[in-house]
Amino acid sequence: MTTLTWTEAAPGVWRATIGDSQALTPLSLIGADPRLEALKQMAKANPPFEWEEVRVDNSVSGRQMLTLPLSANEKLYGTGLQFMRMNQRGRTRYLRVNSDPKQDTGETHAPVPFYVSDRGYGVLIDTARAVTMHLGSALRLDETSAEDAKDRNRDAKWRATLPSARAEVRLPEEGADIYVFGGPSLGDAVSRYNLFCGGGTLPPKWGLGFWHRVPTLFNEEEALAEAMEFRRRDYPCDVIGLEPGWHSRSYPVTYEWDAERFPAPERFVRKLADNGFRVNLWEHPYVSPESELYPALKPLSGNYSVWGGLAPDYALPEARELYAKQHKEKHVAIGVSGYKLDECDGSELTNNSWMFPEHARFPSGLDGEQMRQVYGLMFQKMTNDLYRADNLRTCGLVRASNAAASSLPYVLYSDLYDHKQFIRALCNSSFSGLLWSPEVRRARSAEDWVRRMQTVCFSPLAMLNAWGDGTKPWSYPEVEPIIRRYIKLRMRLQPYLYTAFAAYHEKGIPPFRAMPFVVTPEELVHAEQQRMEAEKLNTTDGAYGKRVIPQWDDQYMFGDSLLVAPLVEGESERDVLLPSGSWIGFETGERHEGGGVIRVRAGLDTIPIFVRDGAVIPMMASQPHALRPGEKTQLEFVHFGSVAGSCLLYDDDGVTLDHENGACGWWKAEVTKTEEGGFQGVLSGDSKLPASYSSVKWRFAAIGLALHDE
Amino acid sequence: MTTLTWTEAAPGVWRATIGDSQALTPLSLIGADPRLEALKQMAKANPPFEWEEVRVDNSVSGRQMLTLPLSANEKLYGTGLQFMRMNQRGRTRYLRVNSDPKQDTGETHAPVPFYVSDRGYGVLIDTARAVTMHLGSALRLDETSAEDAKDRNRDAKWRATLPSARAEVRLPEEGADIYVFGGPSLGDAVSRYNLFCGGGTLPPKWGLGFWHRVPTLFNEEEALAEAMEFRRRDYPCDVIGLEPGWHSRSYPVTYEWDAERFPAPERFVRKLADNGFRVNLWEHPYVSPESELYPALKPLSGNYSVWGGLAPDYALPEARELYAKQHKEKHVAIGVSGYKLDECDGSELTNNSWMFPEHARFPSGLDGEQMRQVYGLMFQKMTNDLYRADNLRTCGLVRASNAAASSLPYVLYSDLYDHKQFIRALCNSSFSGLLWSPEVRRARSAEDWVRRMQTVCFSPLAMLNAWGDGTKPWSYPEVEPIIRRYIKLRMRLQPYLYTAFAAYHEKGIPPFRAMPFVVTPEELVHAEQQRMEAEKLNTTDGAYGKRVIPQWDDQYMFGDSLLVAPLVEGESERDVLLPSGSWIGFETGERHEGGGVIRVRAGLDTIPIFVRDGAVIPMMASQPHALRPGEKTQLEFVHFGSVAGSCLLYDDDGVTLDHENGACGWWKAEVTKTEEGGFQGVLSGDSKLPASYSSVKWRFAAIGLALHDE
Repeated sequence: MTTLTWTEAAPGVWRATIGDSQALTPLSLIGADPRLEALKQMAKANPPFEWEEVRVDNSVSGRQMLTLPLSANEKLYGTGLQFMRMNQRGRTRYLRVNSDPKQDTGETHAPVPFYVSDRGYGVLIDTARAVTMHLGSALRLDETSAEDAKDRNRDAKWRATLPSARAEVRLPEEGADIYVFGGPSLGDAVSRYNLFCGGGTLPPKWGLGFWHRVPTLFNEEEALAEAMEFRRRDYPCDVIGLEPGWHSRSYPVTYEWDAERFPAPERFVRKLADNGFRVNLWEHPYVSPESELYPALKPLSGNYSVWGGLAPDYALPEARELYAKQHKEKHVAIGVSGYKLDECDGSELTNNSWMFPEHARFPSGLDGEQMRQVYGLMFQKMTNDLYRADNLRTCGLVRASNAAASSLPYVLYSDLYDHKQFIRALCNSSFSGLLWSPEVRRARSAEDWVRRMQTVCFSPLAMLNAWGDGTKPWSYPEVEPIIRRYIKLRMRLQPYLYTAFAAYHEKGIPPFRAMPFVVTPEELVHAEQQRMEAEKLNTTDGAYGKRVIPQWDDQYMFGDSLLVAPLVEGESERDVLLPSGSWIGFETGERHEGGGVIRVRAGLDTIPIFVRDGAVIPMMASQPHALRPGEKTQLEFVHFGSVAGSCLLYDDDGVTLDHENGACGWWKAEVTKTEEGGFQGVLSGDSKLPASYSSVKWRFAAIGLALHDE
Repeated sequence: MTTLTWTEAAPGVWRATIGDSQALTPLSLIGADPRLEALKQMAKANPPFEWEEVRVDNSVSGRQMLTLPLSANEKLYGTGLQFMRMNQRGRTRYLRVNSDPKQDTGETHAPVPFYVSDRGYGVLIDTARAVTMHLGSALRLDETSAEDAKDRNRDAKWRATLPSARAEVRLPEEGADIYVFGGPSLGDAVSRYNLFCGGGTLPPKWGLGFWHRVPTLFNEEEALAEAMEFRRRDYPCDVIGLEPGWHSRSYPVTYEWDAERFPAPERFVRKLADNGFRVNLWEHPYVSPESELYPALKPLSGNYSVWGGLAPDYALPEARELYAKQHKEKHVAIGVSGYKLDECDGSELTNNSWMFPEHARFPSGLDGEQMRQVYGLMFQKMTNDLYRADNLRTCGLVRASNAAASSLPYVLYSDLYDHKQFIRALCNSSFSGLLWSPEVRRARSAEDWVRRMQTVCFSPLAMLNAWGDGTKPWSYPEVEPIIRRYIKLRMRLQPYLYTAFAAYHEKGIPPFRAMPFVVTPEELVHAEQQRMEAEKLNTTDGAYGKRVIPQWDDQYMFGDSLLVAPLVEGESERDVLLPSGSWIGFETGERHEGGGVIRVRAGLDTIPIFVRDGAVIPMMASQPHALRPGEKTQLEFVHFGSVAGSCLLYDDDGVTLDHENGACGWWKAEVTKTEEGGFQGVLSGDSKLPASYSSVKWRFAAIGLALHDE
């Protein structure tokens, strides 16, 4: 047993070092400054346990086991982009990057060795290696009591997994830094984590618009025509994404424009810009022998090839410089706005073997295991830095991430999951400083299409990815009006959503939050029981007769005031857990009492969304694309329900980093009752009006948005 | 780079030691004597490569990489009980025990670090640790040529996995013994492996009969009544299996009879024996606090509990003695014939977390990783030794295995797979000294039921496992005659099947063999091409547009002369690859020319089986149960087709180990043409007739078995 020495690394954040701190870790790689001022302003946090309860055991050969205490009914969340469950307590999480995780092992595109407890604290292992966390899943014999053993022949209480009162973490051989984040609440612990990692990302305004990716072999005329079709058909769209076909060679890639399909890329990007479109380029890490970068990168690469190309070692500054120089010249300089970083989540433990092996070696000294774990982080940082150098924000997609990614303007994606898993991943991302896009592709039916489109419009990144099938928002004519309305509604909510991201940036509060952020552990247990009762009739026993406790992992907060409870294909009603207080159907106007579970029906034209009674939602008229610097529109505050309320509003230029130097502002909209029993609204703040808005309109006591109100 | 020193450990078997040999390995645990005489009689084998081409690289921290050369189109088979593919070339195999492998990672119930090549050699890593084998799946950059990189935008030849010319094995930290098995053929390499591991198992005759497992909470009257129903309805049955309910407590277990359900176990077992039934008891490794064994085993157990029970350390002789003493007194002494060893394949990387963790420690010094890898082997050996001590054979089921298991009378099982995977696992088992039962449970339909029953009757262990659903062979009345006929056909083939197992025992030749044993690599490539052409119309591209090369992993040899090509639910015809020569439909009599692919139709009442022209199949009349010592019946040699032929026949008492001391015999049945153009048969051998048979009947030039010929 080793005793750990804890120091307070930041307010409410404690650190202990076990073994040698590794040279390259997620925190050191990203290197963001903790937002100490914001951390100081939080409620004081005490260490969540007695430090002597946290122990390290060296007795297993070559590996050190970290042990942390757990209480009886404590729930644990996080560990990255998990698709299979929300509460990770009682599970062993094998936090290794995996591009195609099919089972509930903990492996995923973004395995983050960080968990948060409903008791209000978080634990991070800062390492570039794969970590195994036994989150109360392994019961020591000396802590087993005779009552733990049940007779499955007779006892219905028998369960496949016995809870244990300790989390055990198998540490890397080299050791690692351990961080404990205080609360007092679960949300506070997550905010502390995000602030310690530099604060949440504030994407450019255009990043929150609608994205469309065109078929992979489209040429510039075809891509341009498809973009203009959005304008012609009155669908908002901000970003056109190009897929592998823009490269002169792909799998592996060149990062060079294909001369046939894109003979004049600068003109192409400019034409799109003239019409309010940004360009996002797909790429992956593996460099083709045909790329001009190849000869210089070859000695700076790992000793295994991928698809015949290089896997460069971007832990080396020389390699980063080569990558940056080329990307700057070929893409950034002509106006490309960002990247989709694919296949940085390779693993051979899938149905394809294409990744470099774990035993690969890189010139910097990293091995394949480490490089796989942080490859996604490296690309996020490199591409983000490209734009920071020009005082610009970017926004992109990435298929791999890890810890310390909160401040990076990247959204995770993959198409390997079903709609329910997409929603669960969206919920789970909120615990680990991640964002997730439940992107839409070709659907099974018009119903499936609408349900997926509704969900994606209330997600961090609203994208239709038609790279392989050529789908367009208007591909299902019978439901086209529904699709258009929701894409426009997302656009109309931009003032609200952008403000939620500003709170992520400045206070570490995730813009999308799972239910444990907004209900107490006791309320959640109660709601789980209700759901278990309701679902009992449908339950069949699995091989181990296990009773699955239903989790509230299919609904989430969109900002502070809206609760989204998507329906999936085949559903026309569902249970919704409403936090305490009164709630109003955002579009239906129906009033519900919260503090429990309600049953909601909704036709295909509606996604169930609930707004708090008294909430004030800053909105604007729908635009073809997000407001660019200098563009203005009318701001509308929509106040819902019957009681007074208020909201904050954030604004800045939406594209540069000037906000980091104060070129931004916060406003407060306050709705109070008048003596006559009506309502009145007052906007106060850094100036009379945010620069993006020409005027303000108020709407009081709304009973839901009218369905066709645009 | 370390140079290895190779010594010839047995004829055609070479060994090199890397690092420290581990104390406990599969070979040392089983401790079987290699069958040196049989190895000496094989064709001479040369080392398959220049020894200097086999290298060990120490440069990756803590781990040693073993590298072996591969030729361009070489195929690799084996690595244990694989469900997802047959040719493992181009795959990374992560050979860790896993009770619920859902993806093609190499993880499985029985991961065997042994592969065989179609170039006629095999490689074994003898270790109790999980081994990762990169079987030509990782391409070193210095071996990558510019032509390896293809442009996926334009080139249809692009593939997700690039082949590499080396197998790379990540060895355990401690090192391991490496064995290379010579050929000259693939089958010879497998035979050498089996002989080196002590020879294949020869189960008791009753093990080859039909098995039935009754519902888990049946009491002794119910179990007895269900057994007698087999006799009443004229279904052969040799073994009645009891599931968890026979234990006084289960999950964890006591190994003690439940006093309510089984008040008089000795009488129960005797009554079954009087009617020709054997009893097989389900158990698992985890000992309940209610077991009389608990107090003495507790200090001899791992430091983590499973389901509240002990995970005993059976690497310790004291622990083995406690287990053996109790099992002997409570089960073996009253006539129980064997065990079904469940859940010795635990892993937390599944949808349940119940196994002791990898970092568990055991008093013998083994850790959790090692214990998981060899737990199944330990139970096979312990239970087999219980019977060997009484000069008896046993036969049982086990859910985990590893290398060196060829000589153990255990058949692997699990219900987590579909019918095609069941068949593929049966094929793949033949490469690694394993046996697999595609056991039948409740089916989706009468058609599914018949197709599964047909397959299981032509598998190593023909079992209906009704533990959870109470299915019986007569549960689908509309197809009952088909089921009865195939269970009887299996019984009638017992002389043939028993002889095939004797060849496994004495010559190491697997009784069930995948197609690479019987066609040349070139023939196989040709047949794959044919299948690819045939299936082209149904192919849709996956995410990586990969072209899947169809494998002939859905048909197999049953002994030397019968080729089984099962149909699954929904199929009424299929392609069959026939080795060169003429073949005859075993039941249909239809004649086919081999050396290529044929299309075969078969109604629900028929499983396509093909017999070689001229083959002589030793059969007997169907019996209610296998012949017991002293029981005799008529032997029938059925000669098929139009040319002369012969077969061997093995016999012994069927239950004891006396055959190991020579109490057994081989006979040869030879069918030759008479001058009149007819056929005649001569039986020659150690005595006039094998002791099990009262007389001999010959049938010549059979044009298939008549469908209702019993």
